[in-house]
Amino acid sequence: MIRAGIVGAAGYTGGELLRLLIHHPEVEVSFAHSRSQVGLPIHNVHTDLLGDSELSFTDQIHFDIDLLFLCMGHGASSEFMKENQVPDTVKIIDLSHDFRMSNEAVYGLPELNRDEIKNARFLANPGCFATAIQLALLPLAYNGMLREVHLSGMTGSTGAGVQPSASTHFSWRDSNVSAYKVFTHQHMDETGKSLQQLQPWFDKPINFVPYRGNFTRGIFVTAYQHCEWPLEEAIQVYKEYYEDHPFTWVSDVAIDVKQVVNTNKCVLHLEKHGSYLVIHSVIDNLLKGASGQAVQNMNLMFGFPEKLGLNLKPSAF
Amino acid sequence: MIRAGIVGAAGYTGGELLRLLIHHPEVEVSFAHSRSQVGLPIHNVHTDLLGDSELSFTDQIHFDIDLLFLCMGHGASSEFMKENQVPDTVKIIDLSHDFRMSNEAVYGLPELNRDEIKNARFLANPGCFATAIQLALLPLAYNGMLREVHLSGMTGSTGAGVQPSASTHFSWRDSNVSAYKVFTHQHMDETGKSLQQLQPWFDKPINFVPYRGNFTRGIFVTAYQHCEWPLEEAIQVYKEYYEDHPFTWVSDVAIDVKQVVNTNKCVLHLEKHGSYLVIHSVIDNLLKGASGQAVQNMNLMFGFPEKLGLNLKPSAF
Amino acid sequence: MIRAGIVGAAGYTGGELLRLLIHHPEVEVSFAHSRSQVGLPIHNVHTDLLGDSELSFTDQIHFDIDLLFLCMGHGASSEFMKENQVPDTVKIIDLSHDFRMSNEAVYGLPELNRDEIKNARFLANPGCFATAIQLALLPLAYNGMLREVHLSGMTGSTGAGVQPSASTHFSWRDSNVSAYKVFTHQHMDETGKSLQQLQPWFDKPINFVPYRGNFTRGIFVTAYQHCEWPLEEAIQVYKEYYEDHPFTWVSDVAIDVKQVVNTNKCVLHLEKHGSYLVIHSVIDNLLKGASGQAVQNMNLMFGFPEKLGLNLKPSAF
Amino acid sequence: MIRAGIVGAAGYTGGELLRLLIHHPEVEVSFAHSRSQVGLPIHNVHTDLLGDSELSFTDQIHFDIDLLFLCMGHGASSEFMKENQVPDTVKIIDLSHDFRMSNEAVYGLPELNRDEIKNARFLANPGCFATAIQLALLPLAYNGMLREVHLSGMTGSTGAGVQPSASTHFSWRDSNVSAYKVFTHQHMDETGKSLQQLQPWFDKPINFVPYRGNFTRGIFVTAYQHCEWPLEEAIQVYKEYYEDHPFTWVSDVAIDVKQVVNTNKCVLHLEKHGSYLVIHSVIDNLLKGASGQAVQNMNLMFGFPEKLGLNLKPSAF
Repeated sequence: MIRAGIVGAAGYTGGELLRLLIHHPEVEVSFAHSRSQVGLPIHNVHTDLLGDSELSFTDQIHFDIDLLFLCMGHGASSEFMKENQVPDTVKIIDLSHDFRMSNEAVYGLPELNRDEIKNARFLANPGCFATAIQLALLPLAYNGMLREVHLSGMTGSTGAGVQPSASTHFSWRDSNVSAYKVFTHQHMDETGKSLQQLQPWFDKPINFVPYRGNFTRGIFVTAYQHCEWPLEEAIQVYKEYYEDHPFTWVSDVAIDVKQVVNTNKCVLHLEKHGSYLVIHSVIDNLLKGASGQAVQNMNLMFGFPEKLGLNLKPSAF
Repeated sequence: MIRAGIVGAAGYTGGELLRLLIHHPEVEVSFAHSRSQVGLPIHNVHTDLLGDSELSFTDQIHFDIDLLFLCMGHGASSEFMKENQVPDTVKIIDLSHDFRMSNEAVYGLPELNRDEIKNARFLANPGCFATAIQLALLPLAYNGMLREVHLSGMTGSTGAGVQPSASTHFSWRDSNVSAYKVFTHQHMDETGKSLQQLQPWFDKPINFVPYRGNFTRGIFVTAYQHCEWPLEEAIQVYKEYYEDHPFTWVSDVAIDVKQVVNTNKCVLHLEKHGSYLVIHSVIDNLLKGASGQAVQNMNLMFGFPEKLGLNLKPSAF
Repeated sequence: MIRAGIVGAAGYTGGELLRLLIHHPEVEVSFAHSRSQVGLPIHNVHTDLLGDSELSFTDQIHFDIDLLFLCMGHGASSEFMKENQVPDTVKIIDLSHDFRMSNEAVYGLPELNRDEIKNARFLANPGCFATAIQLALLPLAYNGMLREVHLSGMTGSTGAGVQPSASTHFSWRDSNVSAYKVFTHQHMDETGKSLQQLQPWFDKPINFVPYRGNFTRGIFVTAYQHCEWPLEEAIQVYKEYYEDHPFTWVSDVAIDVKQVVNTNKCVLHLEKHGSYLVIHSVIDNLLKGASGQAVQNMNLMFGFPEKLGLNLKPSAF
Repeated sequence: MIRAGIVGAAGYTGGELLRLLIHHPEVEVSFAHSRSQVGLPIHNVHTDLLGDSELSFTDQIHFDIDLLFLCMGHGASSEFMKENQVPDTVKIIDLSHDFRMSNEAVYGLPELNRDEIKNARFLANPGCFATAIQLALLPLAYNGMLREVHLSGMTGSTGAGVQPSASTHFSWRDSNVSAYKVFTHQHMDETGKSLQQLQPWFDKPINFVPYRGNFTRGIFVTAYQHCEWPLEEAIQVYKEYYEDHPFTWVSDVAIDVKQVVNTNKCVLHLEKHGSYLVIHSVIDNLLKGASGQAVQNMNLMFGFPEKLGLNLKPSAF
């Protein structure tokens, strides 16, 4: 049994962590920190937790814990690390992008770095699109087959966080689709870094067209590139690569985003058209794309079974 | 051809007015006033109007017009009327609730007050829920048959305006339903006033449970009360009451909200269960519930055909 | 560890049962019966289960089990019971409405009948609307305070089952609302029976306006009736009634349907307006309204902890 | 004033045609043919037309008309043409894909073939994705700049027609995204043909990843390819190409699908990233992608103003 603290527990990723940790058999939540909700029961903000937890938000942080989750906005984590002297006895999982490109932290994608994660003290949890895309491309990079790749993908609105904005206003977003950050999405940096880790001479573009979807949870990404492998061989390569990884699966039939919503899974599906290999990839952006993967990393860091607390009931509909 | 000015033209009801007026054969939009968007083309805010109009927002208001639409927030209209001396040559249609209970303005529900509207100089345009509910109940009140009535209804998110809020955040509202202002909705005042206009001794409650729906446009209201009429007689009474009214129809088959979306229609459907008469009523909250009815009132005030500029293509899906 | 069989495992309630049972620590799924999907892995139909189970659908039913779930369409359960001689060693939970009004089966609402359920051999699992409504009214009936009650409520599309129909066609249902079975919903029978069990002289109508919502999961019901209790007393009565029931909670703040989606909870919220007591009630129609409640009943019938396998992560968004 | 008949008037494109034609000042609908709805008022099927038209469906087809619209399923139009001897006095607009690749019919994309359309007697109306994609690429082809192009795009559910299916079941499609017909979408044929008409030596792939969106109306397509033009030049080229075309516009700001919903417009937006030119394109699949474009073609074929009857109020939300 370990003790964990959450900084930024009133946001979306903090809330998902709470939902996972209050039923995790090896974790006790020591504190749920929030500046804006001090003193209120967590179920005042995360109303779905009514009856599940009597924890309240606090503005007090202490280090009499084994693990600290940082769930603040991007930029705030590096601030926090500057202002706080976290003792060596406390491991840290940061869900922001602040340390993903840094050497200070282990990049927490288990399908890439499981052994390093097991020994990590400071871990940078991957971005949501970055997770879906890397899981679509890792087996290619691992086999040195990566070439210029073309990507499109859609994300749910929870990726944009809890603060209301024009692009998350229901009246605008409902039944709507739009593209954003075309070719410039910030997750391409960490994606490129991971791919080069496996295929160091990879220097081609990762062309990515991201769309805002009118749903709350989930990411659907499609990638394609030229590849000599026949389809059967590609499928075989992918299945082998993910054989030991309990959350990433190759589907023989077409996939959709709802089949992974409210799970920590990534499901892939491959097609071959002419010389193009097409890889579809779906995850829940808040779970495998954020808090679920953080718990998976926690399990690895503390020697728990990798799936502990993550056998989640899919919502399916 | 009349000249019209719109104050508050950057909001939802202002935008709907612009969409209607730029194709209205008898109206020229003299100015589209907005404090926040001064100088910008209206299609920067109402992006669907790209190619339809080269009008820009202005912060200048003048009274060299025939008609002024007030599309500001509730409270701002009475402010405006205090601060501005609108000459008698300018007619006014106010879309806020500020003057709906006042004797200064004619209450602009054509199915109730058409003759007064024709002669109005200052008109208070009804609220959206108020419109749907009154159209469901007017024939009962007209015949002195109104009794204690039970109402439930759902509204689209555009009823809550353009300012983002917790209850219009996509991540919260999508696939969600909630009740609000139960028994205390502000539209019950104007509803009660209208019903008493037809049935002065009516002193029973209008019990109303409003729900926030996860759609953008439309209102569905169901009302029921004890009523001696057999179903056929009730239908006959309703059809007769609305015979001369070109936007309100009684459907012989079950109705749904999308059949009136993007139209100025109200469609009613009646059922009888035991001694209860049930009346369903659907409108588009931004059209018959706001800007469409404002144009209908404008047509009446200026002697244009009542449907002029309002033969809209339904979106249907 | 018990062995359970599911008849009709390819439908919605069968799928939800599979999602719950494959992670339940005291249950082994002995067979998943389906006529239409014989031989296919269950994850071909319930694609979210890829990686979670290697079970396949079978058309073979056997009684070397401890528990049989009947998840077929309404009418098919009574057919099944006529055609099959289920041995006394096998307990039965029927999710159809076939036996809810019958004396052959115990009516499986734990908040009403927990003791009888513990000893049941044949159990009729309640309907979804019936569950939400009864949980809203039971404390009134228990205290003999039930009077004529007015109800409105919305249900998600999964309530209509897996067979496509006009009213579940996406192009029609998306962004739409409609009423159906007004005052005639079939769940009013079982609701009335339960209420009379607690308040035998109750003979007033349960007036219910059900709406089809444009979401997949969840039910929101609002009930109101005259009640002398001040609000605080009513809240106290409700909290006491549900004190020992681990899934039903009274919220002090306004509720919405997504706070219970993908959980087995019912959350209630009370208001008082004039002499009317208003009770809002939310459940997930497939869980507390169907398969989750079935597992809760199973837990009671076999002496497992009532919440075993039902500490579900809410989807929340 | 011309007389028009519609074969297949009970489907989605037939319904949209009726919605447009009943308010078109130069058209009288002579008959609305449907095998399944004979004798019923059209507002029994297209319920939004209640109060707008007293027309009923008929199974009788006659040629005492000026124009015949074929709105049947794919394959049925060529059947119809074989079985019926349509006199030369009757012009034909076919909305199916049966004649789009044929030399018998003029391909009805006004931005490509306006002059031929004006003289057409038999016209093949383009597909919805084909329209959005061609309008994104025509200026490149016109200037001989087309190269291998990468496309992704989402379509609303109405593209799949009125017949219920697994992929249009609300419980599945709501909040879901999936890819289909990747690299094999049937609209690529007509798209390639049009592009080669302008740039005959074009022999590169049109790589297209289509997604099913969880909305009912609209198409959003993004295309990119290498292009030497700086952004400003590209924008200039596009604006010039569409200068004389009243429905296709280049937006200087980012676009979204709802800004064209319920209009006959196509709106484009260009970006440049490295050597890639990116073109976004949005249309309403049922209007500019089907029935709206059919009316536009009708206007051209009969010498009416191109926009007549197509100044539609956008739904915007």
